[in-house]
Amino acid sequence: MTFSGKIGIFDSGVGGFSVVKEVLKLIPNAPIVYFGDTARTPYGTKSPEILKRYALEDANFLIKKGASIIVIACHSAASCATDFLREKLDYPIFEVVTPSVNEACKLSKNGKIGIIGTRATIISGIYERLIPLKRSDAKVFQRPCPLLVPLVEEGWLKSRETRMIVRKYLRPLKEKQIDTLVLGCTHYPLLKPVIKEKAGKRIKIVDPSKEVSKLVKNYIDKEGGVSTSSFAQHEFFVSDLPAHTTEIVKRFLGKKIPLKKETPKD
Amino acid sequence: MTFSGKIGIFDSGVGGFSVVKEVLKLIPNAPIVYFGDTARTPYGTKSPEILKRYALEDANFLIKKGASIIVIACHSAASCATDFLREKLDYPIFEVVTPSVNEACKLSKNGKIGIIGTRATIISGIYERLIPLKRSDAKVFQRPCPLLVPLVEEGWLKSRETRMIVRKYLRPLKEKQIDTLVLGCTHYPLLKPVIKEKAGKRIKIVDPSKEVSKLVKNYIDKEGGVSTSSFAQHEFFVSDLPAHTTEIVKRFLGKKIPLKKETPKD
Repeated sequence: MTFSGKIGIFDSGVGGFSVVKEVLKLIPNAPIVYFGDTARTPYGTKSPEILKRYALEDANFLIKKGASIIVIACHSAASCATDFLREKLDYPIFEVVTPSVNEACKLSKNGKIGIIGTRATIISGIYERLIPLKRSDAKVFQRPCPLLVPLVEEGWLKSRETRMIVRKYLRPLKEKQIDTLVLGCTHYPLLKPVIKEKAGKRIKIVDPSKEVSKLVKNYIDKEGGVSTSSFAQHEFFVSDLPAHTTEIVKRFLGKKIPLKKETPKD
Repeated sequence: MTFSGKIGIFDSGVGGFSVVKEVLKLIPNAPIVYFGDTARTPYGTKSPEILKRYALEDANFLIKKGASIIVIACHSAASCATDFLREKLDYPIFEVVTPSVNEACKLSKNGKIGIIGTRATIISGIYERLIPLKRSDAKVFQRPCPLLVPLVEEGWLKSRETRMIVRKYLRPLKEKQIDTLVLGCTHYPLLKPVIKEKAGKRIKIVDPSKEVSKLVKNYIDKEGGVSTSSFAQHEFFVSDLPAHTTEIVKRFLGKKIPLKKETPKD
């Protein structure tokens, strides 16, 4: 028996394409159905209550489109809505936070772990709650970085302003002597070169897109893998398609892909 | 006879409080009902089609709450949805773009007018269309500035990074020798000191919050003014109320105000 469904991935917008990229690296034949809620993006500034409602609408949309597992690529939604989705839906739910917690706890030597993310992710306190459960000697230091998403979407991936802002955001974390840093937002992998440079060699970087993709691969391998003869037919949906979206997606995937506009619920 | 209704003001989020501030300066007794669509903010990254739907929902919400005139404080919504609202609603509709166009055409000596705003406002091309109609010798130079809203919301109103980014955004406009600059987004008035500094003394600044407030005052004066005995009872609604909202609103108004959470439509 092989895995015959589709991998459903949703995000608040286009950032989840960093997860798509990593999933395709590990499981090239897996058919993916993606939903980016670009009409209501960003989730990072919204309350937990609203995020639960949006996450459920997004996941149901993917299920209607043939998804048999759901990956929450959005950290804000993963932080606030994972338990809620597991209650409401009878599908395997994967998300970016837990595997990143596990990896950070494994990698860190001094137990001092830094988290950067959107305001919603940081305020949710999910990493502060989960990391000590996994590793009792760990200390978590957090910093919301609301400018990094628009810097990525502006395409200023290595500009002087970006370097200054990243340095400013990381400074308080470095002062706390963190040795591990979790990139708690799907946009941040695009800034990895600058983040690595400003963090310095002593600090190890955890990329949640990579971590969740490993879990998905494990699950699909246990299901018998993806049929190698099957041609992976991907579908990428967004709830809104303003002029610059295709260009931003290209920044994530390195190539242009067709995006379909469809709204889960009005 | 005096104006007995309420002034309804809506925006994609909290930026419209810059309009509230200016309206209250000119008409201190005017009762205001405000709606900020913080659950779906920002509008600046969304398509015209979605913006029309949202704007109609927002305006109808204000009418239900007693508004007898509607002010579109959001430039993205004003650019894409004003005609649509005028077709659909039998209420006076004011918006931030037209009075700013008129003021810019009046102020400019050399006819070279710069516009900064969100991507949606710039892509809508509204200023490029309207300015030449008003002044045939005018030339319009535009620049989307997607980082300025998050810089305001981060509270970095005068930081070194903000100064650098503002300088970078204004450089191509200055090279075109503009002598007038329209702040085409409700968040930008908070950056006026830095924008003025980087624009230089030669460039005059048009603040749409001020311009639309003058029109509203004219209209209400023609209606007989606001009863001076009436106690202005304001109501400020937002569709979502994440933790930092009250603090950001304080940055606009200079004081804390009570915000009520209510959603126009699910």
